[in-house]
Amino acid sequence: MTYCLAIHVNDGLVFCSDSLTNAGTDNVGRYSKMHSFVWEGKRAFTLLSAGNLATTQAVIKKMGNDVQQALTPNLLTVANMTEVIDYVGMVSTQVQRNQAKRDTANTNFDASFLLGGQIDETPPEISLIYPQGNCIYESDNHPFLQIGEIKYGKPILDRVISRHTSLERAARVALVSMNSTMRSNVTVGSPVELMLYRRDSLIQGRKIVLNDDDPFSREVSDKWNKGLLSILETLPNFDWEDSPQP
Amino acid sequence: MTYCLAIHVNDGLVFCSDSLTNAGTDNVGRYSKMHSFVWEGKRAFTLLSAGNLATTQAVIKKMGNDVQQALTPNLLTVANMTEVIDYVGMVSTQVQRNQAKRDTANTNFDASFLLGGQIDETPPEISLIYPQGNCIYESDNHPFLQIGEIKYGKPILDRVISRHTSLERAARVALVSMNSTMRSNVTVGSPVELMLYRRDSLIQGRKIVLNDDDPFSREVSDKWNKGLLSILETLPNFDWEDSPQP
Repeated sequence: MTYCLAIHVNDGLVFCSDSLTNAGTDNVGRYSKMHSFVWEGKRAFTLLSAGNLATTQAVIKKMGNDVQQALTPNLLTVANMTEVIDYVGMVSTQVQRNQAKRDTANTNFDASFLLGGQIDETPPEISLIYPQGNCIYESDNHPFLQIGEIKYGKPILDRVISRHTSLERAARVALVSMNSTMRSNVTVGSPVELMLYRRDSLIQGRKIVLNDDDPFSREVSDKWNKGLLSILETLPNFDWEDSPQP
Repeated sequence: MTYCLAIHVNDGLVFCSDSLTNAGTDNVGRYSKMHSFVWEGKRAFTLLSAGNLATTQAVIKKMGNDVQQALTPNLLTVANMTEVIDYVGMVSTQVQRNQAKRDTANTNFDASFLLGGQIDETPPEISLIYPQGNCIYESDNHPFLQIGEIKYGKPILDRVISRHTSLERAARVALVSMNSTMRSNVTVGSPVELMLYRRDSLIQGRKIVLNDDDPFSREVSDKWNKGLLSILETLPNFDWEDSPQP
Protein backbone atom coordinates (compact mmCIF):
# COMPACT_ATOMS: atom_id res chain seq x y z
CA MET A 1 0.00 0.00 0.00
CA THR A 2 0.97 3.63 -0.33
CA TYR A 3 0.05 6.97 1.15
CA CYS A 4 0.91 10.16 -0.71
CA LEU A 5 -0.32 13.65 -0.01
CA ALA A 6 0.02 17.04 -1.71
CA ILE A 7 -1.11 20.34 -0.18
CA HIS A 8 -1.43 23.71 -1.92
CA VAL A 9 -1.32 26.71 0.42
CA ASN A 10 -0.79 30.36 -0.45
CA ASP A 11 2.89 30.06 0.47
CA GLY A 12 3.55 27.08 -1.80
CA LEU A 13 3.25 23.33 -2.08
CA VAL A 14 3.88 20.47 0.35
CA PHE A 15 4.46 16.89 -0.79
CA CYS A 16 4.67 13.88 1.50
CA SER A 17 5.01 10.19 0.66
CA ASP A 18 5.79 6.89 2.34
CA SER A 19 8.26 4.42 0.80
CA LEU A 20 6.87 0.94 1.34
CA THR A 21 5.99 -1.23 -1.65
CA ASN A 22 4.74 -4.77 -1.59
CA ALA A 23 4.04 -7.49 -4.09
CA GLY A 24 2.26 -9.67 -1.57
CA THR A 25 2.93 -9.39 2.15
CA ASP A 26 6.00 -11.62 1.75
CA ASN A 27 7.70 -9.34 -0.76
CA VAL A 28 8.16 -5.92 0.74
CA GLY A 29 10.49 -3.25 -0.59
CA ARG A 30 11.36 0.35 0.05
CA TYR A 31 11.34 2.66 -2.95
CA SER A 32 11.03 6.43 -3.10
CA LYS A 33 7.64 7.50 -4.44
CA MET A 34 8.69 11.15 -4.77
CA HIS A 35 10.25 12.27 -8.05
CA SER A 36 11.33 15.79 -8.96
CA PHE A 37 12.08 17.35 -12.33
CA VAL A 38 13.58 20.79 -11.96
CA TRP A 39 15.01 23.44 -14.28
CA GLU A 40 15.99 26.13 -11.79
CA GLY A 41 14.42 29.51 -12.39
CA LYS A 42 12.17 28.06 -15.09
CA ARG A 43 10.04 25.15 -14.01
CA ALA A 44 9.82 22.69 -11.11
CA PHE A 45 7.64 19.59 -10.94
CA THR A 46 7.19 16.91 -8.29
CA LEU A 47 5.35 13.67 -8.89
CA LEU A 48 4.16 11.26 -6.16
CA SER A 49 3.21 7.78 -7.31
CA ALA A 50 0.96 4.94 -6.17
CA GLY A 51 0.03 1.63 -7.76
CA ASN A 52 1.94 -0.88 -9.85
CA LEU A 53 5.66 -0.25 -9.25
CA ALA A 54 6.69 -1.38 -12.75
CA THR A 55 4.22 1.12 -14.22
CA THR A 56 5.27 4.05 -12.04
CA GLN A 57 8.98 3.38 -12.62
CA ALA A 58 8.42 3.14 -16.38
CA VAL A 59 6.47 6.42 -16.36
CA ILE A 60 9.20 8.27 -14.43
CA LYS A 61 11.90 6.78 -16.67
CA LYS A 62 10.09 7.79 -19.85
CA MET A 63 9.53 11.33 -18.57
CA GLY A 64 13.30 11.69 -18.11
CA ASN A 65 14.12 10.05 -21.43
CA ASP A 66 11.68 12.20 -23.39
CA VAL A 67 13.56 15.31 -22.26
CA GLN A 68 17.00 13.80 -22.94
CA GLN A 69 15.98 12.60 -26.39
CA ALA A 70 13.99 15.79 -27.10
CA LEU A 71 10.88 13.77 -27.92
CA THR A 72 7.87 16.09 -27.83
CA PRO A 73 5.85 16.69 -25.83
CA ASN A 74 8.14 16.58 -22.81
CA LEU A 75 8.43 18.42 -19.49
CA LEU A 76 10.44 21.22 -21.12
CA THR A 77 8.12 21.78 -24.08
CA VAL A 78 4.76 21.81 -22.28
CA ALA A 79 3.40 25.34 -21.96
CA ASN A 80 1.43 25.16 -18.74
CA MET A 81 0.40 22.84 -15.90
CA THR A 82 -2.62 21.57 -17.83
CA GLU A 83 -0.29 20.34 -20.56
CA VAL A 84 1.96 18.71 -17.96
CA ILE A 85 -1.02 16.81 -16.58
CA ASP A 86 -2.08 15.73 -20.09
CA TYR A 87 1.46 14.61 -20.80
CA VAL A 88 1.78 12.54 -17.60
CA GLY A 89 -1.68 11.04 -18.21
CA MET A 90 -0.68 10.15 -21.76
CA VAL A 91 2.60 8.51 -20.67
CA SER A 92 0.88 6.61 -17.86
CA THR A 93 -1.90 5.19 -20.05
CA GLN A 94 0.62 4.31 -22.80
CA VAL A 95 2.80 2.42 -20.32
CA GLN A 96 -0.21 0.56 -18.90
CA ARG A 97 -1.42 -0.39 -22.39
CA ASN A 98 2.03 -1.64 -23.40
CA GLN A 99 2.31 -3.74 -20.26
CA ALA A 100 -1.21 -5.13 -20.69
CA LYS A 101 -0.40 -6.29 -24.23
CA ARG A 102 2.17 -8.74 -22.88
CA ASP A 103 0.14 -9.78 -19.85
CA THR A 104 -0.95 -13.38 -19.42
CA ALA A 105 -2.19 -13.21 -15.81
CA ASN A 106 -4.87 -10.50 -15.78
CA THR A 107 -2.47 -8.26 -13.87
CA ASN A 108 -3.49 -4.86 -12.51
CA PHE A 109 -1.09 -2.30 -14.04
CA ASP A 110 -2.94 0.75 -12.64
CA ALA A 111 -1.01 3.72 -11.31
CA SER A 112 -2.12 7.04 -9.83
CA PHE A 113 -0.08 10.19 -9.45
CA LEU A 114 -0.11 13.43 -7.53
CA LEU A 115 1.50 16.08 -9.69
CA GLY A 116 2.49 19.50 -8.42
CA GLY A 117 4.67 22.26 -9.71
CA GLN A 118 5.07 25.65 -11.24
CA ILE A 119 6.10 27.04 -14.64
CA ASP A 120 7.63 30.54 -14.79
CA GLU A 121 5.34 33.14 -13.19
CA THR A 122 2.13 31.11 -13.51
CA PRO A 123 0.58 30.01 -10.22
CA PRO A 124 1.65 26.66 -8.75
CA GLU A 125 -0.87 23.85 -9.06
CA ILE A 126 -1.45 20.34 -7.77
CA SER A 127 -3.59 17.64 -9.36
CA LEU A 128 -4.43 13.96 -9.01
CA ILE A 129 -3.96 11.89 -12.18
CA TYR A 130 -6.06 8.72 -12.30
CA PRO A 131 -5.01 5.43 -13.96
CA GLN A 132 -7.33 6.42 -16.83
CA GLY A 133 -5.17 9.50 -17.48
CA ASN A 134 -7.85 11.99 -16.47
CA CYS A 135 -7.41 14.22 -13.44
CA ILE A 136 -8.93 16.29 -10.68
CA TYR A 137 -7.61 19.56 -9.24
CA GLU A 138 -7.80 20.82 -5.67
CA SER A 139 -9.86 23.87 -4.78
CA ASP A 140 -10.04 26.65 -2.20
CA ASN A 141 -12.44 24.48 -0.21
CA HIS A 142 -10.29 21.38 -0.54
CA PRO A 143 -6.67 22.48 -0.89
CA PHE A 144 -5.12 19.02 -0.65
CA LEU A 145 -5.11 15.76 -2.61
CA GLN A 146 -4.30 12.21 -1.50
CA ILE A 147 -3.66 8.85 -3.16
CA GLY A 148 -3.38 5.34 -1.72
CA GLU A 149 -4.49 4.69 1.86
CA ILE A 150 -6.19 8.05 2.28
CA LYS A 151 -8.73 7.63 5.07
CA TYR A 152 -6.73 7.39 8.30
CA GLY A 153 -4.91 10.63 7.62
CA LYS A 154 -7.79 12.66 6.21
CA PRO A 155 -9.61 13.94 9.34
CA ILE A 156 -6.63 16.05 10.49
CA LEU A 157 -6.37 17.60 7.00
CA ASP A 158 -10.13 18.29 6.89
CA ARG A 159 -9.95 20.01 10.26
CA VAL A 160 -6.79 22.05 9.87
CA ILE A 161 -5.64 22.77 6.30
CA SER A 162 -6.72 25.93 4.48
CA ARG A 163 -5.07 28.14 1.88
CA HIS A 164 -3.85 30.39 4.73
CA THR A 165 -1.97 27.64 6.57
CA SER A 166 1.74 28.49 6.49
CA LEU A 167 4.02 26.24 4.44
CA GLU A 168 5.87 24.85 7.46
CA ARG A 169 2.68 24.28 9.43
CA ALA A 170 1.13 22.49 6.46
CA ALA A 171 4.26 20.30 6.34
CA ARG A 172 3.91 19.45 10.03
CA VAL A 173 0.25 18.55 9.47
CA ALA A 174 1.33 16.33 6.56
CA LEU A 175 3.72 14.50 8.90
CA VAL A 176 0.95 13.99 11.46
CA SER A 177 -1.38 12.71 8.73
CA MET A 178 1.33 10.30 7.55
CA ASN A 179 2.09 9.23 11.14
CA SER A 180 -1.60 8.43 11.80
CA THR A 181 -1.71 6.34 8.62
CA MET A 182 1.48 4.44 9.44
CA ARG A 183 0.17 3.56 12.91
CA SER A 184 -3.06 2.11 11.49
CA ASN A 185 -1.78 0.43 8.31
CA VAL A 186 1.50 -1.49 8.48
CA THR A 187 1.75 -1.54 4.68
CA VAL A 188 2.42 2.22 4.75
CA GLY A 189 5.95 2.71 6.01
CA SER A 190 9.11 4.74 6.40
CA PRO A 191 11.22 6.40 5.23
CA VAL A 192 8.82 9.32 4.92
CA GLU A 193 9.79 11.89 2.30
CA LEU A 194 8.66 15.46 2.79
CA MET A 195 9.16 18.33 0.36
CA LEU A 196 8.34 22.01 0.85
CA TYR A 197 8.20 24.08 -2.34
CA ARG A 198 7.97 27.82 -1.72
CA ARG A 199 5.81 29.62 -4.28
CA ASP A 200 7.77 31.34 -7.08
CA SER A 201 11.09 29.86 -5.94
CA LEU A 202 11.34 27.66 -9.07
CA ILE A 203 13.85 25.39 -7.37
CA GLN A 204 13.36 21.83 -6.15
CA GLY A 205 12.46 22.94 -2.64
CA ARG A 206 13.50 21.64 0.75
CA LYS A 207 13.37 17.88 0.99
CA ILE A 208 13.78 15.84 4.14
CA VAL A 209 13.77 12.08 4.53
CA LEU A 210 12.65 10.74 7.90
CA ASN A 211 13.16 7.25 9.27
CA ASP A 212 11.17 5.84 12.20
CA ASP A 213 14.02 6.47 14.60
CA ASP A 214 14.65 10.04 13.41
CA PRO A 215 14.54 12.32 16.49
CA PHE A 216 12.42 14.89 14.63
CA SER A 217 9.84 12.21 13.63
CA ARG A 218 9.74 10.88 17.16
CA GLU A 219 9.28 14.34 18.64
CA VAL A 220 6.39 15.10 16.25
CA SER A 221 4.70 11.81 17.13
CA ASP A 222 5.26 12.10 20.89
CA LYS A 223 4.10 15.71 21.09
CA TRP A 224 1.06 14.92 19.01
CA ASN A 225 0.07 12.01 21.27
CA LYS A 226 0.60 14.07 24.43
CA GLY A 227 -1.32 16.96 22.87
CA LEU A 228 -4.33 14.79 22.06
CA LEU A 229 -4.49 13.61 25.66
CA SER A 230 -4.37 17.20 26.84
CA ILE A 231 -7.20 18.26 24.50
CA LEU A 232 -9.33 15.46 25.92
CA GLU A 233 -9.05 17.24 29.29
CA THR A 234 -10.62 20.35 27.75
CA LEU A 235 -13.70 18.59 26.35
CA PRO A 236 -16.96 19.28 28.20
CA ASN A 237 -18.11 16.98 31.00
CA PHE A 238 -21.32 15.04 30.66
CA ASP A 239 -23.96 16.68 32.85
CA TRP A 240 -23.94 13.83 35.39
CA GLU A 241 -20.18 14.21 35.96
CA ASP A 242 -20.64 17.62 37.54
CA SER A 243 -22.96 16.23 40.21
CA PRO A 244 -21.13 13.38 41.97
CA GLN A 245 -22.71 9.92 41.88
CA PRO A 246 -24.57 8.81 45.01
CA MET B 1 -22.88 3.65 5.31
CA THR B 2 -22.59 3.17 9.02
CA TYR B 3 -20.08 3.75 11.77
CA CYS B 4 -20.42 1.88 15.05
CA LEU B 5 -17.88 1.59 17.83
CA ALA B 6 -17.65 -0.35 21.09
CA ILE B 7 -14.95 0.19 23.73
CA HIS B 8 -14.18 -2.00 26.73
CA VAL B 9 -12.35 -0.24 29.55
CA ASN B 10 -11.86 -1.38 33.14
CA ASP B 11 -14.80 0.82 34.25
CA GLY B 12 -17.25 -0.62 31.74
CA LEU B 13 -18.40 -0.44 28.13
CA VAL B 14 -18.99 2.44 25.72
CA PHE B 15 -21.16 2.09 22.62
CA CYS B 16 -21.51 4.71 19.91
CA SER B 17 -23.40 4.59 16.61
CA ASP B 18 -24.58 6.89 13.84
CA SER B 19 -28.14 6.69 12.48
CA LEU B 20 -27.94 7.20 8.73
CA THR B 21 -29.09 4.44 6.39
CA ASN B 22 -29.21 4.56 2.65
CA ALA B 23 -30.49 2.39 -0.15
CA GLY B 24 -28.76 4.40 -2.84
CA THR B 25 -27.82 8.03 -2.33
CA ASP B 26 -31.38 9.06 -3.24
CA ASN B 27 -33.00 7.03 -0.50
CA VAL B 28 -31.64 8.09 2.86
CA GLY B 29 -33.22 7.31 6.20
CA ARG B 30 -32.47 7.68 9.87
CA TYR B 31 -32.81 4.56 12.00
CA SER B 32 -31.29 3.79 15.37
CA LYS B 33 -28.53 1.20 15.11
CA MET B 34 -28.30 0.73 18.89
CA HIS B 35 -30.50 -1.90 20.49
CA SER B 36 -30.54 -2.86 24.16
CA PHE B 37 -31.95 -5.92 25.87
CA VAL B 38 -31.90 -5.53 29.63
CA TRP B 39 -33.10 -7.55 32.61
CA GLU B 40 -32.06 -5.31 35.48
CA GLY B 41 -29.79 -6.88 38.02
CA LYS B 42 -29.39 -9.98 35.83
CA ARG B 43 -28.14 -9.31 32.34
CA ALA B 44 -27.71 -6.36 29.99
CA PHE B 45 -26.83 -6.53 26.28
CA THR B 46 -26.35 -3.86 23.65
CA LEU B 47 -26.14 -4.60 19.95
CA LEU B 48 -24.89 -2.17 17.29
CA SER B 49 -25.73 -3.07 13.70
CA ALA B 50 -24.34 -2.39 10.22
CA GLY B 51 -25.30 -3.71 6.81
CA ASN B 52 -28.60 -4.61 5.18
CA LEU B 53 -31.36 -2.83 7.16
CA ALA B 54 -33.95 -5.54 6.48
CA THR B 55 -31.54 -8.12 7.87
CA THR B 56 -30.60 -6.15 11.00
CA GLN B 57 -34.23 -5.29 11.75
CA ALA B 58 -35.27 -8.92 11.31
CA VAL B 59 -32.45 -10.06 13.63
CA ILE B 60 -33.42 -7.59 16.37
CA LYS B 61 -37.10 -8.49 16.00
CA LYS B 62 -36.40 -12.22 16.24
CA MET B 63 -34.23 -11.73 19.34
CA GLY B 64 -37.16 -10.01 21.07
CA ASN B 65 -39.69 -12.57 19.85
CA ASP B 66 -37.60 -15.54 20.93
CA VAL B 67 -37.70 -14.28 24.51
CA GLN B 68 -41.43 -13.48 24.40
CA GLN B 69 -42.29 -16.85 22.90
CA ALA B 70 -39.76 -18.65 25.11
CA LEU B 71 -38.11 -20.23 22.07
CA THR B 72 -34.69 -21.54 23.11
CA PRO B 73 -32.00 -20.51 22.91
CA ASN B 74 -32.85 -16.89 23.68
CA LEU B 75 -31.19 -13.98 25.49
CA LEU B 76 -32.57 -15.18 28.83
CA THR B 77 -31.52 -18.82 28.48
CA VAL B 78 -27.93 -18.34 27.26
CA ALA B 79 -25.44 -19.05 30.03
CA ASN B 80 -22.56 -16.74 29.14
CA MET B 81 -21.40 -14.14 26.60
CA THR B 82 -19.97 -16.82 24.30
CA GLU B 83 -23.45 -18.34 24.02
CA VAL B 84 -24.95 -14.90 23.35
CA ILE B 85 -22.52 -14.42 20.48
CA ASP B 86 -23.33 -17.88 19.09
CA TYR B 87 -27.04 -17.12 19.35
CA VAL B 88 -26.79 -13.77 17.55
CA GLY B 89 -24.55 -15.32 14.88
CA MET B 90 -27.10 -18.12 14.39
CA VAL B 91 -30.05 -15.72 14.12
CA SER B 92 -28.16 -13.46 11.72
CA THR B 93 -27.10 -16.25 9.35
CA GLN B 94 -30.62 -17.79 9.48
CA VAL B 95 -32.19 -14.45 8.53
CA GLN B 96 -29.71 -13.95 5.70
CA ARG B 97 -30.33 -17.47 4.36
CA ASN B 98 -34.11 -17.00 4.47
CA GLN B 99 -33.88 -13.69 2.62
CA ALA B 100 -31.47 -15.11 0.04
CA LYS B 101 -33.93 -17.95 -0.75
CA ARG B 102 -36.47 -15.45 -2.07
CA ASP B 103 -33.90 -13.21 -3.79
CA THR B 104 -34.06 -12.68 -7.53
CA ALA B 105 -31.56 -9.81 -7.83
CA ASN B 106 -28.30 -11.09 -6.32
CA THR B 107 -28.87 -8.81 -3.32
CA ASN B 108 -26.32 -8.41 -0.54
CA PHE B 109 -28.08 -9.33 2.71
CA ASP B 110 -24.91 -9.14 4.86
CA ALA B 111 -25.03 -7.65 8.33
CA SER B 112 -22.37 -7.16 11.00
CA PHE B 113 -22.89 -6.55 14.69
CA LEU B 114 -21.01 -5.25 17.69
CA LEU B 115 -22.30 -7.04 20.75
CA GLY B 116 -21.48 -6.01 24.29
CA GLY B 117 -22.89 -6.83 27.66
CA GLN B 118 -22.66 -8.59 30.95
CA ILE B 119 -24.36 -11.56 32.62
CA ASP B 120 -24.52 -11.66 36.44
CA GLU B 121 -21.06 -11.37 38.00
CA THR B 122 -19.12 -12.51 34.92
CA PRO B 123 -16.90 -9.86 33.33
CA PRO B 124 -18.42 -7.64 30.63
CA GLU B 125 -17.35 -8.42 27.06
CA ILE B 126 -17.57 -6.93 23.59
CA SER B 127 -17.27 -8.78 20.29
CA LEU B 128 -17.69 -8.21 16.57
CA ILE B 129 -20.02 -10.68 14.83
CA TYR B 130 -19.37 -11.07 11.11
CA PRO B 131 -22.03 -11.76 8.43
CA GLN B 132 -20.80 -15.38 8.48
CA GLY B 133 -21.83 -15.65 12.14
CA ASN B 134 -18.29 -16.03 13.45
CA CYS B 135 -16.74 -13.39 15.68
CA ILE B 136 -13.67 -11.68 17.04
CA TYR B 137 -13.11 -10.35 20.55
CA GLU B 138 -11.17 -7.30 21.67
CA SER B 139 -7.99 -7.66 23.72
CA ASP B 140 -5.90 -5.73 26.24
CA ASN B 141 -3.82 -4.42 23.32
CA HIS B 142 -6.86 -3.52 21.24
CA PRO B 143 -9.72 -2.73 23.64
CA PHE B 144 -12.16 -1.47 21.00
CA LEU B 145 -14.04 -2.81 17.99
CA GLN B 146 -15.53 -0.99 15.00
CA ILE B 147 -17.88 -1.83 12.12
CA GLY B 148 -18.79 0.12 8.97
CA GLU B 149 -16.71 3.13 7.96
CA ILE B 150 -13.91 2.43 10.42
CA LYS B 151 -10.82 4.17 9.07
CA TYR B 152 -11.40 7.90 9.60
CA GLY B 153 -12.10 7.44 13.30
CA LYS B 154 -9.45 4.83 14.09
CA PRO B 155 -6.26 6.91 14.60
CA ILE B 156 -7.63 8.72 17.67
CA LEU B 157 -8.64 5.36 19.21
CA ASP B 158 -5.23 3.84 18.45
CA ARG B 159 -3.51 6.78 20.10
CA VAL B 160 -5.67 7.24 23.18
CA ILE B 161 -7.76 4.24 24.27
CA SER B 162 -6.43 1.73 26.80
CA ARG B 163 -8.08 -0.41 29.48
CA HIS B 164 -7.25 2.32 32.00
CA THR B 165 -9.11 5.09 30.18
CA SER B 166 -12.04 6.20 32.35
CA LEU B 167 -15.55 5.43 31.12
CA GLU B 168 -16.47 9.07 30.53
CA ARG B 169 -13.18 9.84 28.80
CA ALA B 170 -13.60 6.81 26.55
CA ALA B 171 -17.09 8.11 25.71
CA ARG B 172 -15.67 11.53 24.78
CA VAL B 173 -13.06 9.84 22.58
CA ALA B 174 -15.86 7.84 20.93
CA LEU B 175 -17.66 11.12 20.14
CA VAL B 176 -14.48 12.58 18.61
CA SER B 177 -13.95 9.42 16.55
CA MET B 178 -17.57 9.63 15.33
CA ASN B 179 -17.23 13.36 14.64
CA SER B 180 -14.10 12.79 12.50
CA THR B 181 -15.93 10.12 10.53
CA MET B 182 -19.03 12.27 9.96
CA ARG B 183 -16.88 15.14 8.67
CA SER B 184 -15.16 12.90 6.11
CA ASN B 185 -18.06 10.65 5.03
CA VAL B 186 -21.48 12.24 4.47
CA THR B 187 -23.15 8.82 4.52
CA VAL B 188 -22.39 8.58 8.25
CA GLY B 189 -24.77 10.94 10.03
CA SER B 190 -26.62 12.12 13.10
CA PRO B 191 -28.30 11.54 15.44
CA VAL B 192 -25.35 9.99 17.24
CA GLU B 193 -26.28 7.56 19.98
CA LEU B 194 -23.89 7.09 22.88
CA MET B 195 -24.26 4.62 25.72
CA LEU B 196 -22.10 4.24 28.82
CA TYR B 197 -22.48 0.96 30.68
CA ARG B 198 -20.76 0.91 34.07
CA ARG B 199 -19.26 -2.47 34.92
CA ASP B 200 -21.41 -4.61 37.25
CA SER B 201 -24.35 -2.16 37.11
CA LEU B 202 -26.51 -4.66 35.18
CA ILE B 203 -28.82 -1.86 34.00
CA GLN B 204 -29.15 -0.40 30.52
CA GLY B 205 -26.62 2.34 31.21
CA ARG B 206 -26.67 6.03 30.44
CA LYS B 207 -27.80 6.74 26.88
CA ILE B 208 -27.64 10.10 25.15
CA VAL B 209 -28.79 10.98 21.64
CA LEU B 210 -27.00 13.89 19.99
CA ASN B 211 -28.12 15.85 16.95
CA ASP B 212 -25.80 18.05 14.91
CA ASP B 213 -27.11 21.19 16.57
CA ASP B 214 -26.86 19.80 20.09
CA PRO B 215 -24.80 22.27 22.19
CA PHE B 216 -22.79 19.43 23.76
CA SER B 217 -21.91 17.98 20.32
CA ARG B 218 -20.93 21.40 19.05
CA GLU B 219 -18.78 22.11 22.09
CA VAL B 220 -16.95 18.78 21.70
CA SER B 221 -16.31 19.45 18.01
CA ASP B 222 -15.26 23.10 18.49
CA LYS B 223 -12.93 22.36 21.40
CA TRP B 224 -11.39 19.46 19.52
CA ASN B 225 -10.70 21.61 16.46
CA LYS B 226 -9.23 24.43 18.56
CA GLY B 227 -7.19 21.90 20.52
CA LEU B 228 -5.68 20.41 17.36
CA LEU B 229 -4.60 23.85 16.20
CA SER B 230 -2.99 24.48 19.57
CA ILE B 231 -1.09 21.16 19.48
CA LEU B 232 0.29 22.14 16.08
CA GLU B 233 1.94 25.08 17.82
CA THR B 234 3.80 22.69 20.11
CA LEU B 235 5.29 20.56 17.31
CA PRO B 236 9.02 21.06 16.70
CA ASN B 237 10.24 23.58 14.16
CA PHE B 238 12.19 22.43 11.11
CA ASP B 239 15.83 23.31 11.64
CA TRP B 240 15.77 26.07 9.02
CA GLU B 241 12.90 27.86 10.79
CA ASP B 242 15.09 28.67 13.77
CA SER B 243 17.59 30.54 11.59
CA PRO B 244 15.69 33.24 9.65
CA GLN B 245 15.79 33.07 5.86
CA PRO B 246 18.17 35.45 4.06
